Amino acid sequence: MFYIIGLGLSDVKDITVKGLEIVKKCDQIFLENYTSILHVNKEELKMMFNKKITLADRDLVEQNADEILCNAKEKEIALLVIGDPFGATTHTDIILRAKEKNIPYQIIHNASIINAVGCCGLQLYSFGEIISIPFWTSTWKPDSFFEKILSNRLRGLHTLCLLDIKVKEPTLESIMKKKKEYMPPMFMTVNTAATQLLQILNNFSNGEQGHCLDEETKCVGLARIGSSDQKIIFCSLKEMEKVDLGKPLHSLIIPGKLQILEEQYLHQFANSN
Amino acid sequence: MFYIIGLGLSDVKDITVKGLEIVKKCDQIFLENYTSILHVNKEELKMMFNKKITLADRDLVEQNADEILCNAKEKEIALLVIGDPFGATTHTDIILRAKEKNIPYQIIHNASIINAVGCCGLQLYSFGEIISIPFWTSTWKPDSFFEKILSNRLRGLHTLCLLDIKVKEPTLESIMKKKKEYMPPMFMTVNTAATQLLQILNNFSNGEQGHCLDEETKCVGLARIGSSDQKIIFCSLKEMEKVDLGKPLHSLIIPGKLQILEEQYLHQFANSN
Repeated sequence: MFYIIGLGLSDVKDITVKGLEIVKKCDQIFLENYTSILHVNKEELKMMFNKKITLADRDLVEQNADEILCNAKEKEIALLVIGDPFGATTHTDIILRAKEKNIPYQIIHNASIINAVGCCGLQLYSFGEIISIPFWTSTWKPDSFFEKILSNRLRGLHTLCLLDIKVKEPTLESIMKKKKEYMPPMFMTVNTAATQLLQILNNFSNGEQGHCLDEETKCVGLARIGSSDQKIIFCSLKEMEKVDLGKPLHSLIIPGKLQILEEQYLHQFANSN
Repeated sequence: MFYIIGLGLSDVKDITVKGLEIVKKCDQIFLENYTSILHVNKEELKMMFNKKITLADRDLVEQNADEILCNAKEKEIALLVIGDPFGATTHTDIILRAKEKNIPYQIIHNASIINAVGCCGLQLYSFGEIISIPFWTSTWKPDSFFEKILSNRLRGLHTLCLLDIKVKEPTLESIMKKKKEYMPPMFMTVNTAATQLLQILNNFSNGEQGHCLDEETKCVGLARIGSSDQKIIFCSLKEMEKVDLGKPLHSLIIPGKLQILEEQYLHQFANSN
């Protein structure tokens, strides 16, 4: 049997009772660690589960999925993923492969940022399309997500912006040399996201007028949602460049039309600077 | 301390380890049971927690929230909710009240239909605005959600349709008599949802042409997501009227533009009739 078990958002105790029972009976346990991060390390999980845990990086999950699956016909194999199993395309792909190989599988759901984001008081049914903001480089500055923010906002919908994570990304040099070398992990802060958005706004406003979004638009910055030291801030996009929300993971919300209850709730997170 | 603890989607073991530890130390436990349903009864939860559990219906949660909160200044009080604590506006409202009364609170997240719906293979970042389809009566047939489905679909986005639940709803007569009498619980099936949508389509097509949605549009029907007997079906809206997905809760998805992986994944749920 192949299990994909969501670990939730923060620490070892966010696993469900059902998930924990399964992990304890498994023969082999992989921990996927490149589409998100948990606020615990492998050792803490190992202690909680009293089991050996193999880190499954991008190479293992995307290129050697068969290696993870091959034993699952006879043994109990678990892939632990941060958040919910269906947060990343990769996991859908691996389940499809299991299905094709006739390997029985079970999914253990958990919280993901997509529903936990409700903790800022914005109603989940008022969110539009989710977007991802990638790290810009000196030569690559995509901005296609910006139109989606505007489109949501024009319809009164909030936009959850997932911020880029780079874990075990091969360096450009290493791809050319065909010898793998990795960049240090990078997690986008709300500051970088705000800076990139302001730059897009700046570029746009040279040509067009009448945006429904500007540097004074109030946004919500979120950090480490689900953990005991989570932080939420409600301030203008311009101020968002300067706030300090601490360690990753960060997310950003560009709200649409606020209802009274949403506004009341967000008020508690207003920037006091 | 006031805790709102998500129970997840299906059975007693979907609570997180952290949630279970908190429940076990609480002095008083309420179970909210009108915005969703769990596939277990109060007795099973009682056995799992070894605690007395008070059912909190709409009246108690919405009108007597202060009653739940009043003891939380000195005692440990938990409100258990199905799915994630922020799935329903009601829970946001009660946290806001706790905040106003200076009552410390903690949220324990869990899976909700909003993220677990990824189990059908549709990618969560390709969903647009979530809608709710209410039960029609002979005189009240709202259809404002239909424009939202079209708007999502025109942008290539999937629409998750949450289907109406009526638990402990006062009868019209009882409201007039000012003596509370309740209707039997009702849970909308994908069949009823499909019938109502087809009727809206029918009404529209008398006037307008060129809809991006018709009775042949392939949709996804989902039942009891997260439980061991969950069912998913991928068929036309017309066929959706006739399928049998069994017991509640049901949800319906009107897909937007399907990516290859999504199409491959959905294929396994194709209606074989």
